[in-house]
Amino acid sequence: MTAEQVQMLIRGGLPAVGKSGFEVEEVRPGYARIRIPYHEKMLRPGNVISGPTLFSAADSAMYALVLSHVGPELMAVTANFNMNFLNKGRPGDVTAEARLLKLGRRLVVMEVTITTGGDPTPVAHVTGSYALPVK
Amino acid sequence: MTAEQVQMLIRGGLPAVGKSGFEVEEVRPGYARIRIPYHEKMLRPGNVISGPTLFSAADSAMYALVLSHVGPELMAVTANFNMNFLNKGRPGDVTAEARLLKLGRRLVVMEVTITTGGDPTPVAHVTGSYALPVK
Amino acid sequence: MTAEQVQMLIRGGLPAVGKSGFEVEEVRPGYARIRIPYHEKMLRPGNVISGPTLFSAADSAMYALVLSHVGPELMAVTANFNMNFLNKGRPGDVTAEARLLKLGRRLVVMEVTITTGGDPTPVAHVTGSYALPVK
Amino acid sequence: MTAEQVQMLIRGGLPAVGKSGFEVEEVRPGYARIRIPYHEKMLRPGNVISGPTLFSAADSAMYALVLSHVGPELMAVTANFNMNFLNKGRPGDVTAEARLLKLGRRLVVMEVTITTGGDPTPVAHVTGSYALPVK
Repeated sequence: MTAEQVQMLIRGGLPAVGKSGFEVEEVRPGYARIRIPYHEKMLRPGNVISGPTLFSAADSAMYALVLSHVGPELMAVTANFNMNFLNKGRPGDVTAEARLLKLGRRLVVMEVTITTGGDPTPVAHVTGSYALPVK
Repeated sequence: MTAEQVQMLIRGGLPAVGKSGFEVEEVRPGYARIRIPYHEKMLRPGNVISGPTLFSAADSAMYALVLSHVGPELMAVTANFNMNFLNKGRPGDVTAEARLLKLGRRLVVMEVTITTGGDPTPVAHVTGSYALPVK
Repeated sequence: MTAEQVQMLIRGGLPAVGKSGFEVEEVRPGYARIRIPYHEKMLRPGNVISGPTLFSAADSAMYALVLSHVGPELMAVTANFNMNFLNKGRPGDVTAEARLLKLGRRLVVMEVTITTGGDPTPVAHVTGSYALPVK
Repeated sequence: MTAEQVQMLIRGGLPAVGKSGFEVEEVRPGYARIRIPYHEKMLRPGNVISGPTLFSAADSAMYALVLSHVGPELMAVTANFNMNFLNKGRPGDVTAEARLLKLGRRLVVMEVTITTGGDPTPVAHVTGSYALPVK
């Protein structure tokens, strides 16, 4: 699937996410990148990007990666999510890059790196898994 | 500190969180419980409580627990966050109960159990750590 | 299954583990406890119980719990393992108590608390998941 | 520090580890690689590399990385360890490559990729953190 197709599937299946306006920028084998345009609602005190925003970015990138690899199996659900907070995220667009670690029959395992505002210093690192439906 | 004092500190320091209306229901040594009143914005397709809502609930409970134990050290920051998704969260208020695993000089380690709508079946289990400021 | 049956299954299927002499002390719905008798090989410098020993204890307890709940499905494999190190483990027998968080069709999710030498202060806390075979 | 210096420090400070014969193959800014020569004791039933062996490999690589970056601060201790099991590890030398995610004042955060027998397919992926001593 192309980035556009993945984005349409996500917007169709996940209206709330669609409204948040995140964009699937790139999908290719083993990789997906999404971007959430900056909005001041993303900030917590101290003018840093909030934890829930980082969570959403990582989860959206993982979802785009899963969707582009297993097709519109909208039943895939997050099983585990582990985030290490690395640096303060400065105000700006939030970019999340997901890389495939394993595509199994039961689980898809991925890692995600999050950056903000175009600064290449990682703000957070995530590993996570999605469980695939039992057929 | 009492639950009211913790809540006032959080609302003062974290206006965005305060607006979300979560309530610190109980704090005592080694324990904190918060509740986020239900709002349909919490749902994702399938009428289940969304991942970012669960993240926010867990992080708020950990923050309340840290605050009530180390005082208004608002510089404490999340270091690690590990969530296992257990069951679909049905629509309703979201309750997060945080229990202290370790209060060290550098790290506070906690576990959190999340339930929704009064159903005691856990929706998610979280372990997380907050790093304390270097003095 | 009883603790004895679980132990026999583990010893039959996992000769190396059997040799290490860990004992399945108790299994009941939602719970399993194992104990590894103390040996100085468990220590790392500073006279504290080593990380690999803690890992083995946690994994053995999770394995006993899975086995006692799903039967001799020896194909169940560890999917995720997350450990928070809490306190130094003093020399002594190592006890690991596993509690079931979720028994699903694809994943079994558990948490484990590890203590040493009879001291109730937890040395480490683990959450982990086992993937069940696709039928 | 060079790989040799790191290895000498580790062998001096951690006799038990030294005996296991793991070798620090390379250290450079942001990176460390170690190798554990194959021994049949590493296997569990099914002829795959055991979990405790993978844990030891990852922890050794993280320790070498920390040591080479912060000097002989032998007080640095593992705080969190999260492993995703990806593929069966075939018999052979075990290689663990650690990469620095963050070198902070309180925590060092790293990720580790483990392979076995020269096969580039990753067997496990780890993220972990070491807490640095409070000065």
